[in-house]
Amino acid sequence: MIDRLIEKIEQTHAPIVVGLDPMMGYIPEHIQKKAFEEHGETLEGAAEAIWQFNKEIVDHTHDLIPAVKPQVAMYEQFGIPGLQAFKKTVDYCHEKGLVVIGDIKRGDIGSTSAAYAAGHIGKVQVGSKTYAPFEEDFVTVNPYLGTDGVKPFVDVCREQKKGVFVLVKTSNPSSGEFQDRLVDGRPLYELVGEKVAEWGKDCMGKDYSYIGAVVGATYPEMGKVLRQIMPKSFILVPGYGAQGGKGEDLVHFFHEDGLGAIVNSSRGIIAAYKQEQYAKFGEEHFAEASRAAVEAMAKDIGDALAKRG
Amino acid sequence: MIDRLIEKIEQTHAPIVVGLDPMMGYIPEHIQKKAFEEHGETLEGAAEAIWQFNKEIVDHTHDLIPAVKPQVAMYEQFGIPGLQAFKKTVDYCHEKGLVVIGDIKRGDIGSTSAAYAAGHIGKVQVGSKTYAPFEEDFVTVNPYLGTDGVKPFVDVCREQKKGVFVLVKTSNPSSGEFQDRLVDGRPLYELVGEKVAEWGKDCMGKDYSYIGAVVGATYPEMGKVLRQIMPKSFILVPGYGAQGGKGEDLVHFFHEDGLGAIVNSSRGIIAAYKQEQYAKFGEEHFAEASRAAVEAMAKDIGDALAKRG
Repeated sequence: MIDRLIEKIEQTHAPIVVGLDPMMGYIPEHIQKKAFEEHGETLEGAAEAIWQFNKEIVDHTHDLIPAVKPQVAMYEQFGIPGLQAFKKTVDYCHEKGLVVIGDIKRGDIGSTSAAYAAGHIGKVQVGSKTYAPFEEDFVTVNPYLGTDGVKPFVDVCREQKKGVFVLVKTSNPSSGEFQDRLVDGRPLYELVGEKVAEWGKDCMGKDYSYIGAVVGATYPEMGKVLRQIMPKSFILVPGYGAQGGKGEDLVHFFHEDGLGAIVNSSRGIIAAYKQEQYAKFGEEHFAEASRAAVEAMAKDIGDALAKRG
Repeated sequence: MIDRLIEKIEQTHAPIVVGLDPMMGYIPEHIQKKAFEEHGETLEGAAEAIWQFNKEIVDHTHDLIPAVKPQVAMYEQFGIPGLQAFKKTVDYCHEKGLVVIGDIKRGDIGSTSAAYAAGHIGKVQVGSKTYAPFEEDFVTVNPYLGTDGVKPFVDVCREQKKGVFVLVKTSNPSSGEFQDRLVDGRPLYELVGEKVAEWGKDCMGKDYSYIGAVVGATYPEMGKVLRQIMPKSFILVPGYGAQGGKGEDLVHFFHEDGLGAIVNSSRGIIAAYKQEQYAKFGEEHFAEASRAAVEAMAKDIGDALAKRG
């Protein structure tokens, strides 16, 4: 799957992932209204609004991007109907040829991590049959429990040709509270990065491992160090745009060949119509605003990489 | 909710939580067979087997215990039908008067943690209506992202009178890989424990905070230190029984008054019928074996606490 992701990045010339994190506040009035007319102001209504919103964004951007990253919390908050919308979104993105990174940030003791891995990127056994319940291509994983919390995901990846991105340094303001603490003179996130490199060693695609890492765009200097610590790991970089990261901050997350990282933007793309520079599209044409924002983001990152090269 | 949990512990004289982690391998043949006859060997069939298994265990143990802890991964692995069985289990346990600890180990950046908190222990807004989608009483939370990943859960707890248990030192063999690393000469889990105490300070029930901690039974010496670092935090202790923890190891997780901790057992209770000492019940009467295992566990812990006192 890492090879497919890279192939799609090369095809689109855009190391970009669109974060499908449909908070209700981002969903235009007319979509909410229609969904509530059909399903009432219910969890099903919210789920329908999310799904219609996602579909229109995917329809308007899928040819420009290699991948999407639905944040499962935004679906899970609406209970079962919300998770049905998550599944529908994953399936639709696959139909459109997109790589799907499930941003699930799971992580637990061994047998429990194995259950998460089976449900999201693997298969479960029911009697004599097997099923792939959520069927994402990659998922994000929390490393706090150590190797035996991550290993079950790695095993499933190897079997199913899928991939993971392990949280190393997250983009949020207080990520340093534990992640930056010095252990033997080095920040904890570096030790986690070393483990990611180690876990990924026997999991190689053509040039990169399918055990990747999450490193926030908001910490470019740390990205530079981590790029070296995990030379074969793809880095998923959240925090671009709305959270403050810019194209020029991101060059050090990439290798010289322009590969090695994929940058996520959520709000900046899916709620682009709310920004002044895209206001001309209007709320009705929100997905066209998203398309313009994808083009601008691809150009920003492309220019920054070209300038370095 | 912490006061209700304590009240239930005092009523039952059992600081025990039954982990409802229904792996398919634990579910007796006859239950699986019946479920598959009705729903086929499908995700729905697996979910039905899980639900019938849980129901029978709850029916046979609810008067002896204060709380249950369903591990969401064991349901999530069966996709939407699995999560429907999770929700059904939560609701049924509430009907039976049990406190429900959702073992979800979520944790993300601020707005995303807020969505998880809303969906699991809070309420979501849909138009003019509000819903409580999963409605657990407590959830477990992963601290790797720091304060702004935990704070949204704390806020919802305050509003809704719910609670959380933050992972401090987990019960699995490799938990030390990051959690035990020394920061300024002290293990990381102690720093996390200090944060738990700090987060919990303004969240007091009568005697205890509703911001608790998870500390594995498998590390009793660390439990002793953490008990002191977080004097007002209730400790959820996994790892009893099948994972190796014994009653005598657990006394230091408790305060002198016999409160301050609640010990989880999953496999040891729900799959008790597979152990030699409960084999006499037979697979058909698995839930009676679970009841006997609860009684033995309550006695083991009660005796250990009495011996100390």
